[in-house]
Amino acid sequence: MNRRDAIKLSGVAAYGLAQSLRGSAAAQTAATDTPQTGRVERWGVFEASFQGPDSGNPFLAVQVTARFRKENRIVTLSGFYDGGGVYRVRFMPDDLGQWSYEISSNAAALNGKNGVFECVLPGTGNHGPVSVSRGRHFAYADGTPFAPFGTTCYAWTHQPEELEEETLQTLAGAPFNKVRMLVFPKSYLYNQNEPIYYPFPRDAAGENDTSIFNVKFFQHLEKRIRDLSDLGIQADVILFHPYDRWGYQSLAPEVNDRYLRYLIARIASQRNVWWSLANEYDLIRSKTTADWNRIANIVEEEDPSHHLRSLHYGRVMYDYSRAWVTHASLQSYDFGKARQWFFDWNKPIIYDEMQYEGNIPAPWGNLSAEEMTRRFWMAIVSGCYATHGETYLDPGDILWWSKGGKLHGQSPERIAFLRKLVDEYAAGGLNALGNPYPPAAAGENVILYYLDYHRPAEYTFRLPPGVSYRAQLIDPWNMKTTPVEGVLTGTSKMKLPGRPYQAVVFRKTS
Amino acid sequence: MNRRDAIKLSGVAAYGLAQSLRGSAAAQTAATDTPQTGRVERWGVFEASFQGPDSGNPFLAVQVTARFRKENRIVTLSGFYDGGGVYRVRFMPDDLGQWSYEISSNAAALNGKNGVFECVLPGTGNHGPVSVSRGRHFAYADGTPFAPFGTTCYAWTHQPEELEEETLQTLAGAPFNKVRMLVFPKSYLYNQNEPIYYPFPRDAAGENDTSIFNVKFFQHLEKRIRDLSDLGIQADVILFHPYDRWGYQSLAPEVNDRYLRYLIARIASQRNVWWSLANEYDLIRSKTTADWNRIANIVEEEDPSHHLRSLHYGRVMYDYSRAWVTHASLQSYDFGKARQWFFDWNKPIIYDEMQYEGNIPAPWGNLSAEEMTRRFWMAIVSGCYATHGETYLDPGDILWWSKGGKLHGQSPERIAFLRKLVDEYAAGGLNALGNPYPPAAAGENVILYYLDYHRPAEYTFRLPPGVSYRAQLIDPWNMKTTPVEGVLTGTSKMKLPGRPYQAVVFRKTS
Repeated sequence: MNRRDAIKLSGVAAYGLAQSLRGSAAAQTAATDTPQTGRVERWGVFEASFQGPDSGNPFLAVQVTARFRKENRIVTLSGFYDGGGVYRVRFMPDDLGQWSYEISSNAAALNGKNGVFECVLPGTGNHGPVSVSRGRHFAYADGTPFAPFGTTCYAWTHQPEELEEETLQTLAGAPFNKVRMLVFPKSYLYNQNEPIYYPFPRDAAGENDTSIFNVKFFQHLEKRIRDLSDLGIQADVILFHPYDRWGYQSLAPEVNDRYLRYLIARIASQRNVWWSLANEYDLIRSKTTADWNRIANIVEEEDPSHHLRSLHYGRVMYDYSRAWVTHASLQSYDFGKARQWFFDWNKPIIYDEMQYEGNIPAPWGNLSAEEMTRRFWMAIVSGCYATHGETYLDPGDILWWSKGGKLHGQSPERIAFLRKLVDEYAAGGLNALGNPYPPAAAGENVILYYLDYHRPAEYTFRLPPGVSYRAQLIDPWNMKTTPVEGVLTGTSKMKLPGRPYQAVVFRKTS
Repeated sequence: MNRRDAIKLSGVAAYGLAQSLRGSAAAQTAATDTPQTGRVERWGVFEASFQGPDSGNPFLAVQVTARFRKENRIVTLSGFYDGGGVYRVRFMPDDLGQWSYEISSNAAALNGKNGVFECVLPGTGNHGPVSVSRGRHFAYADGTPFAPFGTTCYAWTHQPEELEEETLQTLAGAPFNKVRMLVFPKSYLYNQNEPIYYPFPRDAAGENDTSIFNVKFFQHLEKRIRDLSDLGIQADVILFHPYDRWGYQSLAPEVNDRYLRYLIARIASQRNVWWSLANEYDLIRSKTTADWNRIANIVEEEDPSHHLRSLHYGRVMYDYSRAWVTHASLQSYDFGKARQWFFDWNKPIIYDEMQYEGNIPAPWGNLSAEEMTRRFWMAIVSGCYATHGETYLDPGDILWWSKGGKLHGQSPERIAFLRKLVDEYAAGGLNALGNPYPPAAAGENVILYYLDYHRPAEYTFRLPPGVSYRAQLIDPWNMKTTPVEGVLTGTSKMKLPGRPYQAVVFRKTS
């Protein structure tokens, strides 16, 4: 997707229509108040906006619900107040053809508003949202496989404009197709700066007025999510986190839930959104298991597009077998346990936090590039996926892991190499082989071995009998592949380099 | 100890008397039959031998018990039949002064034999047997600390003479002070050769006559244990193991127990003996928990010198909290669990099998020298000890791990470096600090950090306040130490090399 695939019609901003133009400030303009029509590409954003009441506190007083209908199918979702008397409803149509909608509201000015639009073929690069596919893997809605190679820029949307733009520029040239990012600003080591926007108005004493949302905060956030989408990157949006000095981790339950509904109404229509209920949920002392259940329920009920949902833990692993969870989002680098976890959960597993390449004193922030590269390979041959992050000491405290900026490490290049290999040879996903040694995973036409710290000088591979393979030795660090002579089948003895951290790939001959 | 510290008097072979001479075949000569006297150094071997019945099957028919007495103390132990009508009793006196002994036997020729001997000061290098000291560490009987840096040469005593001599020569120049070795020969990968000696006579069909011991087998074994002692090396003698094609792992219980008593009677007097009830006990299908309990009881009861006792497992960890166990003998390289294990067992822990430096295909046999070095350091900063082994492919199947011979790897030199550091700075033992990051352990005058895969560019060490230290950066692989300027105390921020696998040692200033 690129900037050209969104549209602003009179009162209708339709992101995702390739043949039209969208001004980047489209969503922030005032709404006209006429019957609204338009064309939206499949998995694009249909938006209708309306002028409504602007007195009192519309965030609390005005309810807006939209019913979208195509033939017998009805999708009900919430609209939201965007300030200045403007109300919006957003919807990601997932089916081609004519849709109609009708607004119901306790505000007479909005109640009964309706319109129709046409959902047309998606533009180039629009594959729809990602969901679980083939049990332990992911695919876009159009069936294109998606193998997440993530990174973290937790607080990147809370930085000065130039830094955020630099982050996007870096991402454009990086191998990452998923970014873990916090909704709320972050207060932590190397994260002492105040954010540019706050989600609630604050008074001089720093008290939040949680009865009102700061629409600029949310407009900014959703713009940044769109920016990621334009780069083909999934936004793994983290709804809560414990690194907070402003009170966002311990909002009163009704504020908490209002925030959730408001955020979902605003961004669920963006196809690259994933919901991560929390980063390190177990470190948020103010929330109980019942709270997390309620939050999960709200996300499930309010998101009409059924984006991916998970929850990330700090110390106490979450029970990823729960029905609302679509995939596991681990803080771990214990790859040996993946097999059991697959058995327990039967869902995709992402090692979303397996420490960071860098050189800071904290134990989780000083991996070598070699070790980060190794962990990616281990995740892949365990049938899982992985997330990168980078924490190099910086005089201005701009650490990629949290603030974005520039990448300084040596692992991204190697991760790109691995991603290319997976995309090229095993786009349909790799499933770990049963035998734990050597670590290996098989795709439809490929078997990938990664020997980790082992360095046998020779090894007898047991390939499926009756199938012919060609092999390549792979040096993941030096990013070199060396073809092995001949066609192999069944029990195949092979000389190996005798160095640790080497891989071998076997591809079926056609 | 050296070759000069053993003596053969008329009918008395007393190993460990520094000022006398021992012919290496001493123990195999026929006994005179006169009252026996002599001098034996403390923790040396007192041996008395007697001519007795040589008809029938003396192994089954003749019982020999000796009562050694010093003042009010009485030590009772079993003698053994050594073939050719010769009966011997062996004893390691642990107390200076005059001892007397008296034989009781169902053979009239032996019953009532008695004598006296003088236990004198130990010779240079004789520190006595090793036992547990200061809870989680080891020391010789004279109080000298002993930090085990082991290796494995499981089947080294079942090889041709020249190879065994080569092994001893290699050990003489190696950093290892403990060797894990099997009593019985080994049948396994790279171990297909027949042994030189069998413990029982075998007929043409390969049937064992388990009613008779092959005294040559045991004479050879005890000679090799003495050879190790001469090099200052502990013999971690493994009583049973599963890698067997001759039937030794599944002897009938009465044969099994007779073998144990016979072996103990022969070698318990050698001060460098440790008892390892088994290698990979859980892979010996023919023995039950009750069998292992009985075996442990026999070893405890029959060994008057109370040598160290443990049991090594393959997959299912043994319960090292059991009273008979003196220390844990792990198959593991999970150093993070040591803390909990210390809590559970409160005994010394040796990572006795943490895989091997080499390049064979088997998962346990292809560590890099770097990784073996790392594991030694991790064991040490976990407050534990470790055992090396080496498995390089060899055209003649001479792999150090099992057969001995020559060392080919690069880790022994680094293990020597670490051992020197421990002996020099922390002979009294290192106990892991509570904080798991960075891995660190403290001795009486020293704190040792090993940063493992972490590579912070700087780190703030929290040293005990009010104590002054000098620091050195250590590169364990390159075996370099770099002094850090100044005297440090309390919270001390330090620049670090930013490379993985580095160490820092803090020594109290005097």
